[in-house]
Amino acid sequence: MKVHELQTPALLVDGAALAHNLETMSSALPGERLRPHVKAHKCTALAGRQAALGHAGFTCATIREMEGMAAAGLGQDLLLANEVLDASRLGALSRSGARVTVAVDSEATVEAAARGGVGEVVVDVNVGLPRCGCAPEDAGRLADLARSRGLEVRGVMGYEGHIVGLEDRAQRTELVGQCMELLVKAHAAVGGELISAGGTGTYDINTWATEIQAGSYALMDTAYGKLDLPFRQALAVLATVISVSPGWAVVDCGLKSLGMDHGNPSIEGAAVWFCSDEHVTFSSDPLPAVGDRVRVVPSHIDPTVAYHERMHVVDGDEVVDVWPVDLRGW
Amino acid sequence: MKVHELQTPALLVDGAALAHNLETMSSALPGERLRPHVKAHKCTALAGRQAALGHAGFTCATIREMEGMAAAGLGQDLLLANEVLDASRLGALSRSGARVTVAVDSEATVEAAARGGVGEVVVDVNVGLPRCGCAPEDAGRLADLARSRGLEVRGVMGYEGHIVGLEDRAQRTELVGQCMELLVKAHAAVGGELISAGGTGTYDINTWATEIQAGSYALMDTAYGKLDLPFRQALAVLATVISVSPGWAVVDCGLKSLGMDHGNPSIEGAAVWFCSDEHVTFSSDPLPAVGDRVRVVPSHIDPTVAYHERMHVVDGDEVVDVWPVDLRGW
Repeated sequence: MKVHELQTPALLVDGAALAHNLETMSSALPGERLRPHVKAHKCTALAGRQAALGHAGFTCATIREMEGMAAAGLGQDLLLANEVLDASRLGALSRSGARVTVAVDSEATVEAAARGGVGEVVVDVNVGLPRCGCAPEDAGRLADLARSRGLEVRGVMGYEGHIVGLEDRAQRTELVGQCMELLVKAHAAVGGELISAGGTGTYDINTWATEIQAGSYALMDTAYGKLDLPFRQALAVLATVISVSPGWAVVDCGLKSLGMDHGNPSIEGAAVWFCSDEHVTFSSDPLPAVGDRVRVVPSHIDPTVAYHERMHVVDGDEVVDVWPVDLRGW
Repeated sequence: MKVHELQTPALLVDGAALAHNLETMSSALPGERLRPHVKAHKCTALAGRQAALGHAGFTCATIREMEGMAAAGLGQDLLLANEVLDASRLGALSRSGARVTVAVDSEATVEAAARGGVGEVVVDVNVGLPRCGCAPEDAGRLADLARSRGLEVRGVMGYEGHIVGLEDRAQRTELVGQCMELLVKAHAAVGGELISAGGTGTYDINTWATEIQAGSYALMDTAYGKLDLPFRQALAVLATVISVSPGWAVVDCGLKSLGMDHGNPSIEGAAVWFCSDEHVTFSSDPLPAVGDRVRVVPSHIDPTVAYHERMHVVDGDEVVDVWPVDLRGW
């Protein structure tokens, strides 16, 4: 199939950019040094490419992602880097043969893991992002509690999500150090082999973590694109110009095919005016013609991918692969 | 099943509010005066409730919505209120027995309808919103062209989308009149029985249209909630508190379960700080406990619903129905 034959809107993945990104990251962080985060692409076929480069362990954000990865034969070492209060599905997954580790940051989540039949946990430590994670000084106590409930404690995780997007590399480096000082101290109290942290923006400066949970590097993001990173934009939404008026044109993608939390998407050579459910209105000089195809670059990849059923890997006008986005939902 | 047993995040529909909204609208616009827009809920079970109240015709925004409605036995009179350049699937739908009408606003879209085998069209007229629609003075020419291609021209449509959300009712009324003057004039040149326009914000003041394309009224929206409308908020995302720290708490819904183009969601009695892929961080006094359930109200319903596989119709703590969101995708 050719790109110009695709029904729109359609997710396009530039196969060469994807390959470049995967290989660049794997060279920098080979094997177990990288635990790719699947939330960024929600696609087991893409995860399979990451596994083929030597990364056996993966990071997930939802139970569905954990289940989907195991079903795809990628369940060798799955970390749910998120808290759950009902771990019964994770317990079932573990009994089915997948290696399942879940983050805990409170007595309630430790008890949930034990009750659900999950065998292994990491203690999630707050390193500065106001989200999940226990206070660093509480990590040892939670590890003791977990062990007393029969859980294996594999170590700690702590996501410096407030740092990964800082554009100034020197500042980013300094602040990562401060975050990781907290995590390393917590790890000393917790024990275990894992210090899991980091993201695409800190993959090469977070040298404290034993493994980096980067995900965005594969398809990249316009926000990350502003940083000094060696990864290329690999994803766009293909759309068709369905209407042209004096002064503006309209394509057939919109709020239901684009993650909007970072604002409007961009179109090369055009000014985006606004998005509706199934439309983007924009101006350009010259305007396109009705029927033209346009590549719309979403401002945030993760919630964009979650709207789509499949992604099309392309090489020029050739669709070389169609990958189901099979890790959606919860 | 009980609400407190649901896995989260989960879409909740307040059954009483939904029934109130559907009945209030049907009383104001009985039968053919309303052509409910399914893009707002993407759910054939909900559309079935609208049909049961006497609305046989529906408005759709995508080909998938058209196909899904027909497959659910609701294909008696489907209007795709959007332009398409490849109408082959619509033609197949028409041949399968559904009544299919598609909007056209250019020579290319007229030709696409004819080539695809769609029998009926409406001429989409721009009444002021910079999106689709031909110039009002061009409508007659396009109708002639369509008829010359063997298409039945059922009339005109023109969406006053830049007006429907204005909070001042007097201003809204005045501007709707100006928009509809353009549409009525175009209709005089086009002919046909339909003048299709309007939305939830203008359902009772757009007296020029022969049918109103309202959709949001069923589940409602926080933006529409600011208007003087008799419809109630019926939709929320149920989430679980997964982490509590000194000063904030975190629930397990986020950017992949909430439409974000209108900004952050709201939580009663709380201040929402920010959303991540699978988290909302917020503060409240007192803070909730880990494991508590919270109802998160999205700022925009349509792109919220499109992230979810199902909606749960609830009456207090009782889940009385589970409806697949079966019109997603394209």
